[in-house]
Amino acid sequence: MCTNISLTPEPSNPSTLIEMKTKRIIILGAGNGGQAMAAAIALAGYEVVLYDRYEEAIAPVSQKGGIELSGVSVQGFATLAKVTTDLKGALLEKGLILVVLPAFAHAYVAEQVAPLLKKDDRIVLSPGSTGGALEFRKILFEHGAPEGVKVGETNTLIYACRISDPGHVKILGVKEFLGVAALPARDTQDLLEALRQIYPQTQAVENILSTGLNNMNPIFHVFPTLANLGWIEATQGNFRFYYDGITPSVAKLVEAVDKERMMLCQSLGISTLSGIEWQKKLYGAKGDILPEILQSNRAYKEIQAPSSIETRLITEDVPMGLVPMAEIAKIVGVPTPFMDSAILLASEIMGQDYRAAGRNLRVMGLVGLNKEGLLRRVMEGN
Amino acid sequence: MCTNISLTPEPSNPSTLIEMKTKRIIILGAGNGGQAMAAAIALAGYEVVLYDRYEEAIAPVSQKGGIELSGVSVQGFATLAKVTTDLKGALLEKGLILVVLPAFAHAYVAEQVAPLLKKDDRIVLSPGSTGGALEFRKILFEHGAPEGVKVGETNTLIYACRISDPGHVKILGVKEFLGVAALPARDTQDLLEALRQIYPQTQAVENILSTGLNNMNPIFHVFPTLANLGWIEATQGNFRFYYDGITPSVAKLVEAVDKERMMLCQSLGISTLSGIEWQKKLYGAKGDILPEILQSNRAYKEIQAPSSIETRLITEDVPMGLVPMAEIAKIVGVPTPFMDSAILLASEIMGQDYRAAGRNLRVMGLVGLNKEGLLRRVMEGN
Repeated sequence: MCTNISLTPEPSNPSTLIEMKTKRIIILGAGNGGQAMAAAIALAGYEVVLYDRYEEAIAPVSQKGGIELSGVSVQGFATLAKVTTDLKGALLEKGLILVVLPAFAHAYVAEQVAPLLKKDDRIVLSPGSTGGALEFRKILFEHGAPEGVKVGETNTLIYACRISDPGHVKILGVKEFLGVAALPARDTQDLLEALRQIYPQTQAVENILSTGLNNMNPIFHVFPTLANLGWIEATQGNFRFYYDGITPSVAKLVEAVDKERMMLCQSLGISTLSGIEWQKKLYGAKGDILPEILQSNRAYKEIQAPSSIETRLITEDVPMGLVPMAEIAKIVGVPTPFMDSAILLASEIMGQDYRAAGRNLRVMGLVGLNKEGLLRRVMEGN
Repeated sequence: MCTNISLTPEPSNPSTLIEMKTKRIIILGAGNGGQAMAAAIALAGYEVVLYDRYEEAIAPVSQKGGIELSGVSVQGFATLAKVTTDLKGALLEKGLILVVLPAFAHAYVAEQVAPLLKKDDRIVLSPGSTGGALEFRKILFEHGAPEGVKVGETNTLIYACRISDPGHVKILGVKEFLGVAALPARDTQDLLEALRQIYPQTQAVENILSTGLNNMNPIFHVFPTLANLGWIEATQGNFRFYYDGITPSVAKLVEAVDKERMMLCQSLGISTLSGIEWQKKLYGAKGDILPEILQSNRAYKEIQAPSSIETRLITEDVPMGLVPMAEIAKIVGVPTPFMDSAILLASEIMGQDYRAAGRNLRVMGLVGLNKEGLLRRVMEGN
């Protein structure tokens, strides 16, 4: 779900003002976010290659010869340089690689992409969810990526957007802030420069623990889904997720899990906002208590609950959000009983062991590290 | 909530066939259950004393001079021997004492009743929820109850019933089985004989771990409330609790917590039924999966969700149900992550520390016991 939107119009169209050092952008993933970024970046004058593993994802774009873009950002018909399911073909020529995929697809793409990369290629997961760059980089180098490849992630998807019809994407909102970090952080400046050409609102954050721990989706998605399971299944999600579903009691669970996330940030020296502060800063939402604040957020007004529990609010935000947060918490000794509960309940409901299948310490390559080791890993890479 | 009902009519009216060894029944608590039992037992020819701490609870009965009883069991106007808020007066003359109160009121009543008891008085918590007799007996003897007082509990309330108007109680169903155990179990036979005079369907069970661990309310109430928090608060419970609210995913959580309860029974040598078997046996419910089985239970058809989260489905079933189950599990080494999660989430929502305030090992007087010690305590009392 693309829910983190700013309704301020056009503060952040892909910029053509800055000299185009990066002429070619290769976008892996042709979902809502991938198509929106491909179109917007192409309309800004870049050569855009769009890849997706699935023919059905790119067929509408191929047939139409491009993507129609509408909404609150840049508008028009965008012609792309290449639209393909052939990863090798997509990566033939050098360019900034943006991975715009659900986090559970990162591992597969990393494995496929590794042998095709060239020295000094730059890859940004946009976003990485939590622990994305850690998992991605580990897989890359296990599968033969050449030295010098740079990997990073953003903390969120730049757009709130929807594919409204085949080959037509609507941008509902644009973030006013996009955090980026590389793994290790000494590469951040390089990725920042590349991304800023496209999105000037990009800013460097401390390291990939900041992008990962400032991923607010697990906070606002998981407990509100778990505490509305019956309603979702009995009505196929026929209620407004934020406006109706986050009642005072549900909000208490949201705040409890958010407190754990903030303790974790504090322990690691990562600056962060509480969920409430984040709502106020990013959306200009107002109020004293969370349900009131959410209901003052116009961007949430129309957002319906998922039609079933087979939703990325669980399938992405638990294994690629709460699991890596709770696992990193083990390293730094921050207790996370609410995260642990949510992981347990979601695992039971979905018949998955998300702790085993998600981004645990092993998947992120962090087994055996203490806090100092973790910080050295994200800052310096060793 | 009185939800455990059998719709088989009148299998179990208070019996007048057996010689009345116990002529006087003293009922502490004038809620739905207390009033229903008082009326039915009086109509069967017993002298009934009805006590409640609160004037407003007994006022309608005092004013009317008795209780009108209707529904599927015995019917008619029952005259009681005494209706009072004076505990001392209620206990002046000897009689079988039935405590028919929400479990969170047991501690208060135990403290008040202790100095008023006579040697060999018999007290049955009906029901005890989980750990009721343990907590009650501990408080009794700490507050000066004389030796020889016998304490026990039933596993459930005999009736499904409602006060339909002031002084008028409707019995919707009668249980076909009522389990009783005393603490220690060597006293069970004595309580069984007294109870059987009134309710011939009473049967002795192993010990008070059986009555307590076969308390199915926490299993069917807590997760279905937690997984419908938003729906309850957004609509003031405007949906059917069992029919609409226990969807396939919610049912998975019910079954997960039930499995923990069954493991606990197994570890302690207590016979039990799974939630599903229990539905089938007690209600003649049919089906393969839990939501289907619950929806075949006619008794559940009309049961609405609570109108707020301030409901005994949480305030009684967590501290007096899941907490003592999870605490006993610590003694026997059975892991209870689902119970622990439910306790954590309910505590957060209600702003209570239910583990500290509920029936923990200290409250039940079980600190320091191992499994053998626990079994000796419930069987022999030492």
